[in-house]
Amino acid sequence: MRDPGALARDDVAAIAGATLERLRAAAPRVHCITNAVAQNFTANALLALGAVPSMTLSAEEIGAFVARSGALLVNLGTFDAERRAATAIAVETAAKHNLPWVLDPVFVDRSDSRAVYARELMARAPAAVRLNRAEFAALAGGETSPDAFARNHKTTIGLSGQTDLVADGTRAALIANGHPLMARVTAMGCAASALVAACLAVEPDAWRATASALAIIGVAGEIAAEKASGPGSFAVAILDALHNLDAKTLNLRAKVS
Amino acid sequence: MRDPGALARDDVAAIAGATLERLRAAAPRVHCITNAVAQNFTANALLALGAVPSMTLSAEEIGAFVARSGALLVNLGTFDAERRAATAIAVETAAKHNLPWVLDPVFVDRSDSRAVYARELMARAPAAVRLNRAEFAALAGGETSPDAFARNHKTTIGLSGQTDLVADGTRAALIANGHPLMARVTAMGCAASALVAACLAVEPDAWRATASALAIIGVAGEIAAEKASGPGSFAVAILDALHNLDAKTLNLRAKVS
Amino acid sequence: MRDPGALARDDVAAIAGATLERLRAAAPRVHCITNAVAQNFTANALLALGAVPSMTLSAEEIGAFVARSGALLVNLGTFDAERRAATAIAVETAAKHNLPWVLDPVFVDRSDSRAVYARELMARAPAAVRLNRAEFAALAGGETSPDAFARNHKTTIGLSGQTDLVADGTRAALIANGHPLMARVTAMGCAASALVAACLAVEPDAWRATASALAIIGVAGEIAAEKASGPGSFAVAILDALHNLDAKTLNLRAKVS
Repeated sequence: MRDPGALARDDVAAIAGATLERLRAAAPRVHCITNAVAQNFTANALLALGAVPSMTLSAEEIGAFVARSGALLVNLGTFDAERRAATAIAVETAAKHNLPWVLDPVFVDRSDSRAVYARELMARAPAAVRLNRAEFAALAGGETSPDAFARNHKTTIGLSGQTDLVADGTRAALIANGHPLMARVTAMGCAASALVAACLAVEPDAWRATASALAIIGVAGEIAAEKASGPGSFAVAILDALHNLDAKTLNLRAKVS
Repeated sequence: MRDPGALARDDVAAIAGATLERLRAAAPRVHCITNAVAQNFTANALLALGAVPSMTLSAEEIGAFVARSGALLVNLGTFDAERRAATAIAVETAAKHNLPWVLDPVFVDRSDSRAVYARELMARAPAAVRLNRAEFAALAGGETSPDAFARNHKTTIGLSGQTDLVADGTRAALIANGHPLMARVTAMGCAASALVAACLAVEPDAWRATASALAIIGVAGEIAAEKASGPGSFAVAILDALHNLDAKTLNLRAKVS
Repeated sequence: MRDPGALARDDVAAIAGATLERLRAAAPRVHCITNAVAQNFTANALLALGAVPSMTLSAEEIGAFVARSGALLVNLGTFDAERRAATAIAVETAAKHNLPWVLDPVFVDRSDSRAVYARELMARAPAAVRLNRAEFAALAGGETSPDAFARNHKTTIGLSGQTDLVADGTRAALIANGHPLMARVTAMGCAASALVAACLAVEPDAWRATASALAIIGVAGEIAAEKASGPGSFAVAILDALHNLDAKTLNLRAKVS
C-alpha cells in the first residue's frame, strides 16, 4: 500500500526524541478549543509532556490567547455555538500569525451537521488532522485513502487505531505502539491531538510533528499499561509516563515501520 | 416497611451479574446530559464498565446522538439554558424511539426553580430516578414514600444512602454495599445514575436495571476502598474495580435484602 | 522587605491547624464560579479537605446557591458571558449576606479585557485575592507592592510562587512549602483559591484564612510529592494528603517565616 522504505524505524524514533527535547526546552503554549469532557485531561497531558495549555473560548479573549500561542487545537467534541464562534476567530488568528493548527473531528461519524462543518474547516488549512477510522470515513466520504486525502488537502493525517498511520501524501509511517486500555479512558484521542499541536509548535514539518506525537503517546501508553490495574490507574500512569519520557526510551520502544 | 421476601439476596446479585455480562457484550452507548463537574468522571465510569459515553449538548446534534444511543441520562447539575434546550429535544427523541431514560435531580433541595423543573420532567416518564434522600424529599414534596412515589409515577426509584433502596412500587431491594469515601469524590452519584442508564440499555426491566447498577457501583466501591489511601486514590481504584468486576465477585460481595 | 517578626512560624502553623479543625467540623459549602478545566479537581480538593462544593452558573439559580453557602470563589479562567452574568449576581448576593468571597484572576496577564474586568471586581471588596506574580503584575499595573495593594484595597493578597506570600498590608507571612510538581497539574492554583474560600467560611480574619489555606495545600503538596512518580500520581496523592492532613502534621511541616 505504501512504500516501506519511505522512512526507516530509526528515523521516526529519532525525530520523536528530538521533537520531545525541543518541546521540553521551549515549553510552548497550546491553545485548545476542546470538548468539555476532555478539557482537564488534555491540560494535564500537555503539562505532563512539558507544554502549557490554555482553553478559553470567549470570543472577546480567544484572539489574544491564540495570537501569542505556539499552536492551536480545534476539537469538535461537545461542539456548540460558543465553540463555533471561538473556532472562527481562532482559525483566522492562526492563519494571520502563520501558526499551525490541528483538527480533531471527534464523532463526525455520528452527526451529519458536524461532518459538514468539519469539511468546511478542511478548507482552512489545518497542518494536521488526527482522527480514527470511522471519523476518517465520515470526513472523507469514504472515497479516498488517507494518503490521497492528505495530498489533496495539503495536510498530514494522523489516523489512530491498533496501528497508527501518519501520512502526508508523500511520506507514511505506521506506529504500532499503544495499548487497548487507551480506548477505555475518555479523552485519550483528544489528548493525542493536543500533543500533535504541541509538537507542531516546535517542529514545523507537520508529518514529523504528527509522527512524533503519536509515537510519544503510544510509547507512554505502553509504559503506563505495565503499571496499571485498570483504566483508572492507567490514566494516572500515562501522565506520569509522559512526564518521565526521554529520547532514549522513545528510541528503545518505538515500533515504527 | 417493605416485604423482606419480595426478592432474595441471590436474585439481585444474580440479576446484576447477568446485566453486567450483557452490558460487556453489547457495549451500549449512553448519551449523557450531565453537569460540567461530572462529565469526565462519568465518561470514565461508563468506559470502565464497558459502555460508551457521548455528551454533546448542542441542540443541532443531540437528536441524532440520542436516536442512535441505547439510553439517555438527564442530570440536573449545573443546569443552564443550553442543557434545558438539550433536555427537551433529548427526552422527546427518547420517547419517539422508545429509549429508556434516567433522571438524576441533583441538588433539587437547594434550588426551588430546579425542583419545579424536575417535577415537570417526571411527567415525561423516566424509566428510573436516582437521587439521595434530601433530593427525594424536595422532589416528592415530602408527602409520599419512595414506594408510593414510584407507583404513582410508574417509575423506579434508586435512592442512594448508607443503604440504597430500589423500589418500583411492587418490588423493593435494599443494597448495603458501598463505602463512605464515595461521598468524598465528586460526581460519584452522577456516575451511578449513568450506570443505571447503561444497565437500562441492556435490561428493559427498570427495577432490575437500577438494582444491578447500584449493586455494581456499591461492590466496586468496597473493592476500591480496600486499595485506597484517601479520596484521590479511591476515585482511581473504583474505575479499575468497575473494569475488573465480574458476575462471580458480584455474587460473593453483594449485600442485598 | 517585610518585618520578619510580624508573625512567628508557630503562629501560622497553629492558626492553620485550628482552621483545619474548624473546617472539618463545620463542612461549609463553597460556591465556585470557576473555569471548565478546573471544576472537577476543585470540587475534589474541597471534598478531600472536608468542605462541600457547588458549581452552578445559571443566573436563575446562583443567587439561592450563594445565599446559603459559607463562601464564594470567583475564578476568571475560561470566562464567558454566562460566568460574567453569574458573577454579577453572586458577588451582589455575597455582599448582601455578608459572605466572604475570593478572587482568582487567572491569566489576567494574557488578556487585556480580563485584566480590566478583574480591576472592576476589586471594587466589590473580595476578602482575599489569590494569584501568581505575573497575574499580580497585570492586576496591579506593576505600580505597587503586594502589601501596598492589599492595604489600598482593604483585602488580603495570597501570592503563589516558589515561596508564597500572604499580606494584608499590616501582616505578612512567607510560606515555603509546596513542590515543583504542583505547577505540572492543571487547576492546582484554582484549587488553592477554593481552599482559601473554604477557610474563609470558618475563619473571618481573611489573612489568617488565606495563610491557613496556603499552608495546608503546600504541606499536602510536599506529602504528595513523596509518594508520586510524576504529575498523574501527584494529583491523586495530593487529594489523599488533603483528606488525611491533621493539625499535628501541619505544625511539624509548615515552613513559615
